[in-house]
Amino acid sequence: MNVNELNVKKTAVLFFDMLNVYYHGAPRETQQRMKPVVDNAVRLMNGARRASLPIFYAMANHRPDGESRSRIVTDTDMRLRPWPNGDCKPAVHGATEGSWAQKVIDEIAPQPEDYVIPKFRWSTFHQTYFDLALRSCGIDTLIVSGGAVDVGVASTVYSARDHDYTVIVVSDACSNSHEDSVAAFMNTVFPRMARVRTTDEVLEMIRKGGKLNQLI
Amino acid sequence: MNVNELNVKKTAVLFFDMLNVYYHGAPRETQQRMKPVVDNAVRLMNGARRASLPIFYAMANHRPDGESRSRIVTDTDMRLRPWPNGDCKPAVHGATEGSWAQKVIDEIAPQPEDYVIPKFRWSTFHQTYFDLALRSCGIDTLIVSGGAVDVGVASTVYSARDHDYTVIVVSDACSNSHEDSVAAFMNTVFPRMARVRTTDEVLEMIRKGGKLNQLI
Amino acid sequence: MNVNELNVKKTAVLFFDMLNVYYHGAPRETQQRMKPVVDNAVRLMNGARRASLPIFYAMANHRPDGESRSRIVTDTDMRLRPWPNGDCKPAVHGATEGSWAQKVIDEIAPQPEDYVIPKFRWSTFHQTYFDLALRSCGIDTLIVSGGAVDVGVASTVYSARDHDYTVIVVSDACSNSHEDSVAAFMNTVFPRMARVRTTDEVLEMIRKGGKLNQLI
Amino acid sequence: MNVNELNVKKTAVLFFDMLNVYYHGAPRETQQRMKPVVDNAVRLMNGARRASLPIFYAMANHRPDGESRSRIVTDTDMRLRPWPNGDCKPAVHGATEGSWAQKVIDEIAPQPEDYVIPKFRWSTFHQTYFDLALRSCGIDTLIVSGGAVDVGVASTVYSARDHDYTVIVVSDACSNSHEDSVAAFMNTVFPRMARVRTTDEVLEMIRKGGKLNQLI
Repeated sequence: MNVNELNVKKTAVLFFDMLNVYYHGAPRETQQRMKPVVDNAVRLMNGARRASLPIFYAMANHRPDGESRSRIVTDTDMRLRPWPNGDCKPAVHGATEGSWAQKVIDEIAPQPEDYVIPKFRWSTFHQTYFDLALRSCGIDTLIVSGGAVDVGVASTVYSARDHDYTVIVVSDACSNSHEDSVAAFMNTVFPRMARVRTTDEVLEMIRKGGKLNQLI
Repeated sequence: MNVNELNVKKTAVLFFDMLNVYYHGAPRETQQRMKPVVDNAVRLMNGARRASLPIFYAMANHRPDGESRSRIVTDTDMRLRPWPNGDCKPAVHGATEGSWAQKVIDEIAPQPEDYVIPKFRWSTFHQTYFDLALRSCGIDTLIVSGGAVDVGVASTVYSARDHDYTVIVVSDACSNSHEDSVAAFMNTVFPRMARVRTTDEVLEMIRKGGKLNQLI
Repeated sequence: MNVNELNVKKTAVLFFDMLNVYYHGAPRETQQRMKPVVDNAVRLMNGARRASLPIFYAMANHRPDGESRSRIVTDTDMRLRPWPNGDCKPAVHGATEGSWAQKVIDEIAPQPEDYVIPKFRWSTFHQTYFDLALRSCGIDTLIVSGGAVDVGVASTVYSARDHDYTVIVVSDACSNSHEDSVAAFMNTVFPRMARVRTTDEVLEMIRKGGKLNQLI
Repeated sequence: MNVNELNVKKTAVLFFDMLNVYYHGAPRETQQRMKPVVDNAVRLMNGARRASLPIFYAMANHRPDGESRSRIVTDTDMRLRPWPNGDCKPAVHGATEGSWAQKVIDEIAPQPEDYVIPKFRWSTFHQTYFDLALRSCGIDTLIVSGGAVDVGVASTVYSARDHDYTVIVVSDACSNSHEDSVAAFMNTVFPRMARVRTTDEVLEMIRKGGKLNQLI
C-alpha cells in the first residue's frame, strides 16, 4: 500500500487518555501547552465523524483502593524524580473509576455510538476488549491522538504494531512533557512502525479516502 | 521495595535477539559497535549462571515464505529510509526458522536447561509462552540485555511493565543504531517504568541478592 | 496440595452471569429451576464475605447496536434449534450495557469493594482485566458459581485451567438447561481440570481455611 | 452465512495432538479405537491439500524437567482416578520437546509449508502464535480433527469461538476416551458454538467450495 493512502472503511480514531486529570485538572502551564493539541483533536474528531469513522476512547480506570495497580519497581516516579531514599512507592492513580478526573474532556466527549475502552495499564490493548472491538468492526488502521507520547501512546503503538494494525500518529494532536523523547519517537521510532502525520494531513487523507468510498 | 534490592529467587535474565544475523552476519562496523555489548552480555550470563538464575532467549522466528509476517504500512523501512515512491513493501525477515542467521550467537549459547522463546513480532510477550514460563518459574523480575533498544527491547519492556514484571535494563549490554532514541529511552522513558543499570551494577546486585539467599 | 485444602488468602469467588436476564427476566419454570442455585449463591457469598474473600462478578456486556458481537456460523441457536433454512443469523444479545437485563441479580448484588468484569464473549478471561486483577490480588484459586455450565462457566474454567488457576466448581450453585452436558461436565470433564464440590463443602473449606489463617 | 457453505479461501485445517504418545505409543485397545479416526484424518488431510487449505498441527510441548507445567489442584488425574490420599501430584507430561512421543504421527506428517504450533497448555490459542498465524493468512474458519474431544479439542473450540473463528468439528475424525462427554459435546455443546460434520460431509463442503473458487 502507498504511504499516502487510507481505506476509510477500515480506519478508526483512537483518543488516548484525553482525560480531565491531564488537562482541565492540570496546572495552568500544562493546559497552555496542551491547548493546541486539544484543538487539533477536536478538528480530527469532527473530520472523523463526518466520514463516519468509528471513534474509540482509551480511558485509564483505577480502583479508589488501588488494589489492581501495578507494583513494579522503577528508578523514578512518573515525573522522573528518583524515589526518596530509593524507596519505590507508587501512588494510587488519580483517574479513579467514576471520578470527574477520569472523564474524557468535554471538548471531544464520547457519543453513544462511540467505544470507550477502560484500561488498567498503559497499553490500550492490555487486557481490554479493544482488539476484539476493532476486529468486529473490520478495522485495520488506527489514527492515534492523545498523550503522553512516551508512556501510553508509545505502549499502544508498539502493541498495535504487533497486533498487525497500521497506525497513523497525529504528531500535533499528541502531547508529552519530555522534548527529547517526543522527538526520538516522532523522528526515529514511529516512522519504522507507523506513519507520522499532522492533523491537516490526516484530515486530507480522510477526505480523499472518503471520496473514493463515496462516504462524504 | 528499594531500588537497589533484587530477589534473585524471583529474577530471570532475558537475552533479546542476540542472533547471528545482527552480529556475526552484520557489517564490520556493526560488529565493532556491538563487541563491548556482547562482552557485557557474556559477563552477565556467567554471573546469572553462578547464581542459578533462569536464562531466557528471545529469538525472532520467521517463515521462509514470509506468510506470517506483518504487513502494516510504515513511513520507512527498518533503516529509516522512506519507501521508494511511497510504496511500502516490507522484505521477508532474515531470521528464518532453522537458519544460521537465526541462531543465538555462540558467545552466549543457550544450554539445555535454558528457555528459548521463538517470537513472531517485536515484543517477547506477543503470542509466545514467555509469560506462562515466567509465571511457572515464579519470576517477577527481568534483567534485559540485547537489541535493538528502540525496537524489540522497548516493545518487550513496555509489555513487561503492563504484565507487572519489574525490569532492569542493562544499559551497556544493550545495542542500538540510533543515538537519539537510545538516549531518550535510557534517560527519560525507562527510568519511569524500569530500572536502568550497568553490567557491573547488575552483577553486584545479583551477588548481594545471592548471598542473602545463600545461593552463591 | 491436598484436594481438601484451601488457602483462603489466595482464593476468590466468581459469580458468572448471574444477571436479571437469566433469572428475574426468565420464564417461571426457569426461575423455579434456578431458585435453589440462587439460594446457594447467596450462602456462598455470605461465607465469602465473612472470610474477606474478594468477590468477582462476570457480566455479559453488549452494545445495543450489536456491533461488537460474534458473527460465527453455528449449527443451532443458543436453545439448540437449527437455523430456519440453515441461515445462521445470531440475534443481538439481551444483556445490553446499562440495561436492567444486564444487572447482577439483587440477591447477590455487588458491593463497592467487589470486582465487576464486563465481558464480551463467553470466557471471563477473554479480553477482560480479570487475569490482571486476580494477579494483582495474589489470587491462585477460584470458586465458581453461576451459569450456564456448558457455555460461559465451562469456557471460563478451561481458560482458568490454562492460566494456572485452581478452580472449585460449586455444583449446586451452578445452573444449566441441558442435563446431559451438565452431568458430563460435573462427572467427567471438571474433575480432571478442577475440583467439584457442593456449597456446604465449600463453606466448610472456607471456614477451616479461615481458621488456619485466623481470619474468622 | 448458510450452515452448509464454506469459503475455502478463508479456511484452514487443525490437527490437534495427533502425536505418537497418543496413538503409536498407546495400548493396543486405544490404537484400535483410534484407527478409524486416523484414517479419517488422513482423508481430510488429502482433501485439504488438494484444495490448498493451510494445515496446522497443535502439538503438546513440555520440558523434560517439567518446569513450565501446570501445578493446579484437581480432583483426579487425567484418567479420572482420584489422587491417592487426596494428594494431588501431576506427573511430568509424556510429550516432551524433541522426543519421539511428541512427534506428529507419520500418517499425517507435517510438510515444510505447514504450520506446527507447539503448545504448553490445553488450548491451541493459549500463549502460542496460532491466532497471529491465522490472521496473517486471512483465515476465519477452522476444521478441527484430533483428540481428546473433552480436553484439548473442547478447550480450543471454546477459545476459537471467543476469538471469532467459525469452527467445524469433524465428529468421526476426533477421538475421546469418555462416551458421556463426547456425546454431550457433539450433541449439546458444539452445535451452539460450531458446526459438527462427518469427514465425508466436510470433504464435500471443501470440494464444492473449491469449485466455486476454481481452486480444484
